[in-house]
Amino acid sequence: MLPETPFLVVDESRVRANAARMRARMESLKVSLRPHVKTAKCLEAALICSGGVPGPITVSTLKEAEQFASHGFRDILYAVGMVPAKLDHALQLVRQGISLKLVTDNVMAAQAIAQAARQQGLALPTLIEIDVDGHRSGVKPDDRERLLAIGGALGPQLSGVMTHAGGSYNSRSIDEIRAAAAAEREGVVKAASTLRQAGMNCPIVSVGSSPTATYGEHFEGVTEVRAGVYVFFDLVMAGIQVCKLDDIALSVACSVIGHRPDTGWLITDGGWMAMSRDRGTARQAVDQGYGVVCNAAGQPLEQLIVSDANQEHGVISHREGKPLTEAEFPVGTLLRVLPNHACATAAQFDSYQLAAPGEALRITGNWSRFRGW
Amino acid sequence: MLPETPFLVVDESRVRANAARMRARMESLKVSLRPHVKTAKCLEAALICSGGVPGPITVSTLKEAEQFASHGFRDILYAVGMVPAKLDHALQLVRQGISLKLVTDNVMAAQAIAQAARQQGLALPTLIEIDVDGHRSGVKPDDRERLLAIGGALGPQLSGVMTHAGGSYNSRSIDEIRAAAAAEREGVVKAASTLRQAGMNCPIVSVGSSPTATYGEHFEGVTEVRAGVYVFFDLVMAGIQVCKLDDIALSVACSVIGHRPDTGWLITDGGWMAMSRDRGTARQAVDQGYGVVCNAAGQPLEQLIVSDANQEHGVISHREGKPLTEAEFPVGTLLRVLPNHACATAAQFDSYQLAAPGEALRITGNWSRFRGW
Repeated sequence: MLPETPFLVVDESRVRANAARMRARMESLKVSLRPHVKTAKCLEAALICSGGVPGPITVSTLKEAEQFASHGFRDILYAVGMVPAKLDHALQLVRQGISLKLVTDNVMAAQAIAQAARQQGLALPTLIEIDVDGHRSGVKPDDRERLLAIGGALGPQLSGVMTHAGGSYNSRSIDEIRAAAAAEREGVVKAASTLRQAGMNCPIVSVGSSPTATYGEHFEGVTEVRAGVYVFFDLVMAGIQVCKLDDIALSVACSVIGHRPDTGWLITDGGWMAMSRDRGTARQAVDQGYGVVCNAAGQPLEQLIVSDANQEHGVISHREGKPLTEAEFPVGTLLRVLPNHACATAAQFDSYQLAAPGEALRITGNWSRFRGW
Repeated sequence: MLPETPFLVVDESRVRANAARMRARMESLKVSLRPHVKTAKCLEAALICSGGVPGPITVSTLKEAEQFASHGFRDILYAVGMVPAKLDHALQLVRQGISLKLVTDNVMAAQAIAQAARQQGLALPTLIEIDVDGHRSGVKPDDRERLLAIGGALGPQLSGVMTHAGGSYNSRSIDEIRAAAAAEREGVVKAASTLRQAGMNCPIVSVGSSPTATYGEHFEGVTEVRAGVYVFFDLVMAGIQVCKLDDIALSVACSVIGHRPDTGWLITDGGWMAMSRDRGTARQAVDQGYGVVCNAAGQPLEQLIVSDANQEHGVISHREGKPLTEAEFPVGTLLRVLPNHACATAAQFDSYQLAAPGEALRITGNWSRFRGW
């Protein structure tokens, strides 16, 4: 028997294929992979990404660090800028034997990190965040003065540089992604070189985003690549050719609860509480609304999207206005919706239901996920 | 000591004031209030809305029905169209003695409800959903044929009509909200009259949305008003003059984690995982980004908004480009962000931290919330 709708479905074979493809790519390019576990927040998915045993991971919260540490992951990069108020929490993890790596882009936090490490006699290896595309935080690769000031403040805790080419999400072509990957690599390699020329220690050179990890032509000078959303993929990634629709491993199962004969809409119980409010495809060439509609087997139904959503109501319509009828989609019909953004949609649920391959949806097990900070 | 950022803050005195204002309004207009508990999903907040003891409530999921039933709420309207696969779950609640009211807008579900009630010898009182503004689901008030068909299929389970003037969220003036409230009232009253004239039973006439509940001039012929978001209010409601900024009881506390000297941005640890992806003010006269920034005491900082968000990073900028400096907002500075949409933002957290009044943020307790289906 199926769970009550809405529920979150994972196609495990696609997760395994996505993970294996990324691992093989990194191996062939001779660079380490440090999967970002913020997308799935799930032990089973992280283990698949790491090749079956705990490996190096990236986290976006100290809660993730804690959870994965409790399951044997020891090498953890916390990829959000550190604030002094979280240092005690970080030190708790270090005392458990976790090799926890921190990130900062400013002198004030660097000083607080160095001081805490010194006072506690513990290592708090820290990477300087580099800004390669202006989309968020970080030091500009050519801002030698600020780089050396932060490096100096970190002292023995300085362990490398890292960046995230988040701007690559807005690429309009594979060539643009390749260019973003080149800029990402060049930026951190330059920053590492600046630090090393000043006699500072910079063993780790870390880059990453699913688009640049997928299309980067080489990673010379880089020691590790981080990527997260590739574990499930989603419509935003498909919209910039980082995956195909058939690679998307995540969908939300919902039921038809009514029809609008005047507009030709289907109404479902898959609203934004299930899909999330993410409208990441709105700025892409093809706006997928709140998601692409598939049948129960997960096969996309041509031209059907979730065109609007209330908290617990989804509105499904045909792109060209073809009426969707009660005869074709009776009340109770189960549909599956591919999400715009896997990280946001998965966060709306506490577990993943594993789908068996086949025409009818059958659930063979589940994985749990956690949330919070 | 404060919790680690990001965390969700509630100003309890504002919750009490918002709840009291709505209760007083409904009393003066001589209509019952059936608060929608989907916004807070929290026992303490629901009790405040009900005047201290369990009263009639509206829910958006059967999980909410279960949770509130376990805390003494007995009169529950499940306001999302019923599907046959959820009838067993609904019947479990009825067997616990809950007066659970269902909703449908189609003959197929109506038949399934009537059959289940008959077979189990239990009551499944059901309201016909009416569509007063085309925004979602429901039967048009003048579609006599469909109304009577559904009423006939429900038979003895028919208990009334309900509608939700969700279109009122797009109003541009108080006059437009008043007009939406009038249309909402007229639509359900007309549908009720059609059913009664055909000899059918229609004791309940239910309307509701926070805007129309706030500005509706009278509710003649209506037996109850539902509203939810007014418990906390938010920027979308402030943007259509349903509340003032000072009425908003919910905010997300976050920390400054860095600065961008070149753009004048602050970077915080309050990203979309904390704020939600809701951009409900984007289509309003004033786009508030991902939220309006306040100091730790909850006082709005003029012109500062969260202009962009990644999963765990918020970008705060000044509307007119004034640079936000490290001197004014050092790393670690605590800020609070008012949300676009209280229902969506609250759903990103498992608890509310209660703020004591005063200049510094001090937490005096917490309320838990639940989620899921």
